[in-house]
Amino acid sequence: MEFLNKNDAGGEGEKPVPISQVEKLTGKQVTFYAIDLLDYNSLTEIFDKHEFCCVIHFAGLKAVGESCIIPLTYYQVNVCGSINLFLVMKEHNVKRLVFSSSSTVYGEPQFLPITESHPVGQNLLNGYAKSKYYIEGILQDLCNSDKEWFVIILRYFNPVGAHSSGTLGEDPNGIPNNLMPYVAHVAVGNIPNLNVFGNDYNTIDGTGVRDYLHIMDLAEGHVSALEKMLKSNDSGAIAINLGTGNGYSVLQVINMFSEVSKRKIKYEIVGRRSGDCGSSYCDASFAKEYLGWEAKRTLKEMCEDTWRWQSLYPQGFSTKT
Amino acid sequence: MEFLNKNDAGGEGEKPVPISQVEKLTGKQVTFYAIDLLDYNSLTEIFDKHEFCCVIHFAGLKAVGESCIIPLTYYQVNVCGSINLFLVMKEHNVKRLVFSSSSTVYGEPQFLPITESHPVGQNLLNGYAKSKYYIEGILQDLCNSDKEWFVIILRYFNPVGAHSSGTLGEDPNGIPNNLMPYVAHVAVGNIPNLNVFGNDYNTIDGTGVRDYLHIMDLAEGHVSALEKMLKSNDSGAIAINLGTGNGYSVLQVINMFSEVSKRKIKYEIVGRRSGDCGSSYCDASFAKEYLGWEAKRTLKEMCEDTWRWQSLYPQGFSTKT
Repeated sequence: MEFLNKNDAGGEGEKPVPISQVEKLTGKQVTFYAIDLLDYNSLTEIFDKHEFCCVIHFAGLKAVGESCIIPLTYYQVNVCGSINLFLVMKEHNVKRLVFSSSSTVYGEPQFLPITESHPVGQNLLNGYAKSKYYIEGILQDLCNSDKEWFVIILRYFNPVGAHSSGTLGEDPNGIPNNLMPYVAHVAVGNIPNLNVFGNDYNTIDGTGVRDYLHIMDLAEGHVSALEKMLKSNDSGAIAINLGTGNGYSVLQVINMFSEVSKRKIKYEIVGRRSGDCGSSYCDASFAKEYLGWEAKRTLKEMCEDTWRWQSLYPQGFSTKT
Repeated sequence: MEFLNKNDAGGEGEKPVPISQVEKLTGKQVTFYAIDLLDYNSLTEIFDKHEFCCVIHFAGLKAVGESCIIPLTYYQVNVCGSINLFLVMKEHNVKRLVFSSSSTVYGEPQFLPITESHPVGQNLLNGYAKSKYYIEGILQDLCNSDKEWFVIILRYFNPVGAHSSGTLGEDPNGIPNNLMPYVAHVAVGNIPNLNVFGNDYNTIDGTGVRDYLHIMDLAEGHVSALEKMLKSNDSGAIAINLGTGNGYSVLQVINMFSEVSKRKIKYEIVGRRSGDCGSSYCDASFAKEYLGWEAKRTLKEMCEDTWRWQSLYPQGFSTKT
């Protein structure tokens, strides 16, 4: 989720809408600074002002297609922003980090389910995936150079859904890149129909299969990582898949969304999209073993919660309520 | 060669010694700015002031061992410095680049001689090699995103030697990292003896074999790349090995250096160094085919020129002459 895009941000000095929603839902105040990770001095000021036990680093650009059009910007924001953060952490002796990586570092799956020991970095076709892979490599070297660092690298599969209240959800800029928000926009009438890229894959119905994960499960995975980090004496960089371990096809997602929203989702089968693979889903057992975490929510709940959010906020956070 | 380290730099406003030497040798004035590539604004100022047809990007930290100790600094300087340069180039519509990469991107050789299609980026053991590999990946994406870019990536094997005048050579900070300057320092009496890491490799005499390349051949390789770039309509990112294609063992280098310097080089055989491989040398045919360049100078000339420089400047550029 990107909290800092212009649509979300309130006026000068106001908190972005998603942060206010989090405060309402939790009844807690969130200390929030809108800074650019490329701005080393601002980052230093925050670390001077507070004492952190751990950092969760979510920030980054995340649109695969866009990363092929403006790769330098992706590398600058993701890689150099991360390096700045790590340098400032190091200077302030904060050496525990949870990092948002991505299943895209695995490239085209060489075997299924994908375990954490699956090769990474081979034939990555876009700057987004490569930027995550590079950051993982930098973290590995950092941990090798200084045994005080403890880094948990979370490789997200396909996060979808919304908070069950319907007040907090994904609000992409412009046309959504990913299937679930796209389906939701078609269901609510923002977009007339959906292209399904290929129905000739070797899958249950020929359409692409992905490991969708409810965003609330993902959030709980981060809490588990944080707890692990605070109570364990481990060190080094440890990569962990976050997924359900189950794959669903594009048509299964569309049908489930249609069922829970009671809307017809118009779609058209078109040709395969270059760079897409047939199936991708993870072996989720290491997360259970190491973090004591596993995904609990079903595809139905992912669709229900997405639909609740999309119906309440058809134009995202800028919807007049 | 690092022109900007403190030993080399003259007083405020003075040019670093190597630049003055170049001016003496060529009879031409060199416009020189000492700026940090991490300083985006200074970089922009230079591009605003001049009109460039092409950039040769040599800047970077280059000590393999040090990169394992301070990896973040290596990634910041090498990767973020490069990204800044590419962004400023793009903004000024300068889209032709010769980039100094390294044979270390190949990792442990999977076959010999190493061609440009040898896998890169696998099991790289240090931040230096990885930083070069990452920059190559970024350049690939940049060229894919914009067909106006033409980038020649030069993968250096083991540059050694000095200008034949003896007035321009390698002046490492502190104890040298690489074999040839180390041998030269032993020959001249700055260091008592040399460790040879392993004599049980599967090579001509058991010691490690590398593809040494005279620095003047390397320089001429850059001129050829520049000429190619200015007269060709090619585009994209093209990687080219710069080496002789011949390997010499550590003992062969020591013996040759001993012969030309008429000094005894004391050495001791010690255990293998982790991360070292037995042999590494390149297939140099693509450079000949594509650039019309090939290395001309022999191991003897490499040793003679190194020795001339080292005898004239036993303490490097800070030697009183």
